[in-house]
Amino acid sequence: MPTVPHIEKHFLGTQTVRDVVIGMADGLTVPFALAAGISAAVASTHIVVAAGLAEIVAGSIAMGLGGYLAARTDQEHFVSEEKREYFEVERVPEQERSELRDIFASYGLQSSELDAVVVALSADKKRWVDFMMRFELGLERPDPKRAPLSAMTIAASYFIGGLIPLAPYVIETDIHRALLFSVAFTGVALLVFGAVKGTLTGVNWFKSGLQTLLVGGLAAGAAYYLAGLFA
Amino acid sequence: MPTVPHIEKHFLGTQTVRDVVIGMADGLTVPFALAAGISAAVASTHIVVAAGLAEIVAGSIAMGLGGYLAARTDQEHFVSEEKREYFEVERVPEQERSELRDIFASYGLQSSELDAVVVALSADKKRWVDFMMRFELGLERPDPKRAPLSAMTIAASYFIGGLIPLAPYVIETDIHRALLFSVAFTGVALLVFGAVKGTLTGVNWFKSGLQTLLVGGLAAGAAYYLAGLFA
Repeated sequence: MPTVPHIEKHFLGTQTVRDVVIGMADGLTVPFALAAGISAAVASTHIVVAAGLAEIVAGSIAMGLGGYLAARTDQEHFVSEEKREYFEVERVPEQERSELRDIFASYGLQSSELDAVVVALSADKKRWVDFMMRFELGLERPDPKRAPLSAMTIAASYFIGGLIPLAPYVIETDIHRALLFSVAFTGVALLVFGAVKGTLTGVNWFKSGLQTLLVGGLAAGAAYYLAGLFA
Repeated sequence: MPTVPHIEKHFLGTQTVRDVVIGMADGLTVPFALAAGISAAVASTHIVVAAGLAEIVAGSIAMGLGGYLAARTDQEHFVSEEKREYFEVERVPEQERSELRDIFASYGLQSSELDAVVVALSADKKRWVDFMMRFELGLERPDPKRAPLSAMTIAASYFIGGLIPLAPYVIETDIHRALLFSVAFTGVALLVFGAVKGTLTGVNWFKSGLQTLLVGGLAAGAAYYLAGLFA
């Protein structure tokens, strides 16, 4: 359908952008906070790197497979709801017609218009079910190719995001300096990532950058403090 | 609106149930995999507990604040899209009317019915915008109280989920036995959690339990293997 240019763009562009944002946000934050927390408890960067890598792998797989299963569940849910709508349209058509009437009555249509709309919409079963799926249930047909792509995008983003806070512990053997470099690297990465995310979602980029930095900083600070208490 | 009993229930019941599922799924999986991974690299349960606690705290905060910001972003996005729709309805009403026509034409309404529907729907600006928000953009007005509640639910679920795989390392000082207990505890917890999640989402509970166990097991196995290689 024709639209005013630059109007009604979809939120976050594509699903792939959304998946990158989901994966990278957690990938930057959790391994960073974990490495900082372990730094407070142990003296060797070796253990930080081992634990960090374990976390990145575990997190990538858990998030990737979690994303895969969520996309699969969305698909199964859509199919089962669609079957139910077909069943209702065939078994209790008068009830479904009265639901259609109620929907349009709530938007101010009068009796004579209501009848015409209900007759027209319920003339074709497929169109009728499509309308109920979209309007009554607010469901859009998911793309079946989305699940594996979504899984890989989230996992790869988490992995790449997680390498940034961990890299200083690989290069630098002094754990205090490694921690400082990790804070600096990750701070910049969180700010840039938050700003880009803000631009893509139409939120102020500066505010988004600071918010993202704050989340990562709070998580890391709390992990550092708690692990330090325990060590 | 009246519905056939037990029909058209909302997916996953409430947002709170969904938040518990999100938090607990990752809380059971990632700390479990991390603890298993570190077990392969170090000999002391002390370090596993310190790293595990750091991870649980970091993960709870990152996921909780992430959920908070996501809910806030949804709200801001809704408000900005609503403003844009009001703007369009006022500035380019003919264009918006033609979008309404296109929508209903695609569902099989004929010319005379189309005119009546378009006139009725566009008679009141608020209803017109409500209709476009719901139907054209597929957006529902978010509950403003949701963001903080969502954050706390996700964080608490992650925290509680994470304590299950970690508990054996606190109680048992022999790291190999602690790992075995952790695998057993978490395996049972993943199966039960997956089965309950399956029941709530209307997917087969047995299949859902096995899938959830598989995700946790794969993530932990990969983390264990990788951290073992590195140690």
